[in-house]
Amino acid sequence: MFKLSNVKRWLVAGVASLALAATAHAQDKVYKLKLAETWPSNFPVFGDAPRNMAAMAEKMSGGRLQITIDSRNKHKAPLGVFDMVRAGQYDMGHSASYYWKGKVPATLFFTTMPFGMTAPEQYSWFYYGGGMDLMQEVYGKYNLMSFPGGNTGVQMGGWFQKEIKSVEDLKGLKMRIPGFAGEVIAELGAKPTNIPPGELYTALERRTIDALEWVGPSLDLRMGFHKIAPYYYTGWHEPATELQFLINKRSWDKLPEDLQEILRVSMRAAAYEMYIHSYHESSENLAVIKTQYPNVEIKTFPSEVIESMRKVNNDLLEKYSANDELAKKILDSQATYLEKVRKWTEISDKAYLNSIAQ
Amino acid sequence: MFKLSNVKRWLVAGVASLALAATAHAQDKVYKLKLAETWPSNFPVFGDAPRNMAAMAEKMSGGRLQITIDSRNKHKAPLGVFDMVRAGQYDMGHSASYYWKGKVPATLFFTTMPFGMTAPEQYSWFYYGGGMDLMQEVYGKYNLMSFPGGNTGVQMGGWFQKEIKSVEDLKGLKMRIPGFAGEVIAELGAKPTNIPPGELYTALERRTIDALEWVGPSLDLRMGFHKIAPYYYTGWHEPATELQFLINKRSWDKLPEDLQEILRVSMRAAAYEMYIHSYHESSENLAVIKTQYPNVEIKTFPSEVIESMRKVNNDLLEKYSANDELAKKILDSQATYLEKVRKWTEISDKAYLNSIAQ
Repeated sequence: MFKLSNVKRWLVAGVASLALAATAHAQDKVYKLKLAETWPSNFPVFGDAPRNMAAMAEKMSGGRLQITIDSRNKHKAPLGVFDMVRAGQYDMGHSASYYWKGKVPATLFFTTMPFGMTAPEQYSWFYYGGGMDLMQEVYGKYNLMSFPGGNTGVQMGGWFQKEIKSVEDLKGLKMRIPGFAGEVIAELGAKPTNIPPGELYTALERRTIDALEWVGPSLDLRMGFHKIAPYYYTGWHEPATELQFLINKRSWDKLPEDLQEILRVSMRAAAYEMYIHSYHESSENLAVIKTQYPNVEIKTFPSEVIESMRKVNNDLLEKYSANDELAKKILDSQATYLEKVRKWTEISDKAYLNSIAQ
Repeated sequence: MFKLSNVKRWLVAGVASLALAATAHAQDKVYKLKLAETWPSNFPVFGDAPRNMAAMAEKMSGGRLQITIDSRNKHKAPLGVFDMVRAGQYDMGHSASYYWKGKVPATLFFTTMPFGMTAPEQYSWFYYGGGMDLMQEVYGKYNLMSFPGGNTGVQMGGWFQKEIKSVEDLKGLKMRIPGFAGEVIAELGAKPTNIPPGELYTALERRTIDALEWVGPSLDLRMGFHKIAPYYYTGWHEPATELQFLINKRSWDKLPEDLQEILRVSMRAAAYEMYIHSYHESSENLAVIKTQYPNVEIKTFPSEVIESMRKVNNDLLEKYSANDELAKKILDSQATYLEKVRKWTEISDKAYLNSIAQ
């Protein structure tokens, strides 16, 4: 028998559950973000970082946060990531802060600095030494948020066709070394050139250039430079290259709080993870290089060369500081932090590695 | 006017939305986990790691995963964490694997080893070199899962009342140095003793002991040892002390997939984070020690002492390997990995730190 009292009860239940269902519906809403990376598709280590981040975010959100990744092959603008994310054409980017120094000079300081901090030192500065606030001060003006995006560890000084015995040997040296480090060696008489990645091998083989730097064993192995250059120099110019996640502030603001936290933690974990992934790949690939090409000589620049590069580096940084108040603020923060934290590195990692060496 | 057709429509909607609400209800179910930590309440750095983990998990899950933390003050069993989590009295623990070596010898190898890997090397081994599988092989037998729980970085060799100039100076030396490192120096004639943390300061001040090791500046500063001991030695015995998250397998299995991933990522991020947090605290506290007590001498053991300790260490590890197949498997995996990865550390971090030193 159909009783109106039952109908009423169900009706009340129905209305109540409709309200619940509305909440459930909001919770189930799928947020889709588009990310543009500077790298080509299937680029190892660098390209793994945003994919790892997206996989964690999707799984942790039960599918409510979906991030699709376009490589340079798709968007055709590897160095347009800043502009595309700023304009909202993409919600996110994966790139490196120092690529934007032509647009916004102060972005130069959030990747790595010659003679600067190592990876654990720099992460400490970002998260506990004021680095994140300074980065946000720079990027906030462009409606962007920037987060650490993965560290390569110490990058190698590069592959050389001839040994560098003194500053004299840098004079006239044609080297592929972009950015700030290129400016440093130019001051010492070298000729930094830029050559597309696909042409580097041939350029080095045919001596169109005398030297080049790329990353380190993690990515150098597949480029094959060890087959054609006898000297592999240790690093000075990029001791802790940190990649970058960029987010359009409006895209961020649209996310509910739990998804913002999922995104924040996914980026943070993926960045740390790339540092370790890169460490492992460097170790594996260095072993391959040494096995296949035992004659590759690993060398460190003579101290005279190092000191000359450091002097030029300091002079250039002073010019930056003199011309730009924000640059000065960031460089001062880094210098103060480095001075303190390096004292710890000296008596911990460095003392350990030096004292227990067999 | 009330029309039955409307009632029917609402009724259908009501039933449908009841089903939806049931789904929503399952999604809204709150999972509460209890975690026991080995540390006292308000223990800096170590205790921050599980709290950071729990905060991320709760926020990322929108409150569906809630983890409460009991300190030793509450559960009274700092070294009972393994048993309590195994028995299901707690769902999770935060402790260190080497505390369980009396129960399960192979647990000794998942914290740090004298003359062993540094933090990035060891993380690489855990996540890319087979370490996680080996750890699960050890813990799985006890219905437990173990995950990295935060790294202290290189621990200092300790505070000494007198300088150690030769192996001779270790003979009869009364030192608080627990665990495997204590066994090593005992072989060289020292007398390792164990003293409760609260009595350490007085024991060192009154020369009941001649030396002690604790952690490093991050935690040593508050203990005040720098006020009463003139020598602070650099580390050899715990180059990368990794704490541990323990989980009861049944508690883990009860979680839906998204919360499992939230928990996994929260633990992983919190572990990396503690490494960086610890790095920062060590740097800050070292500066305080040096400012307040400029006469504290930071020293490194002479190479003769280091080599004697290394020899004893290797002999002890060989005994472990001979007696326990699983121990052998783990030690072989670590030795093979260390040999390869250290070659990378030598030409990256070590070469950088040594070559750019002013």
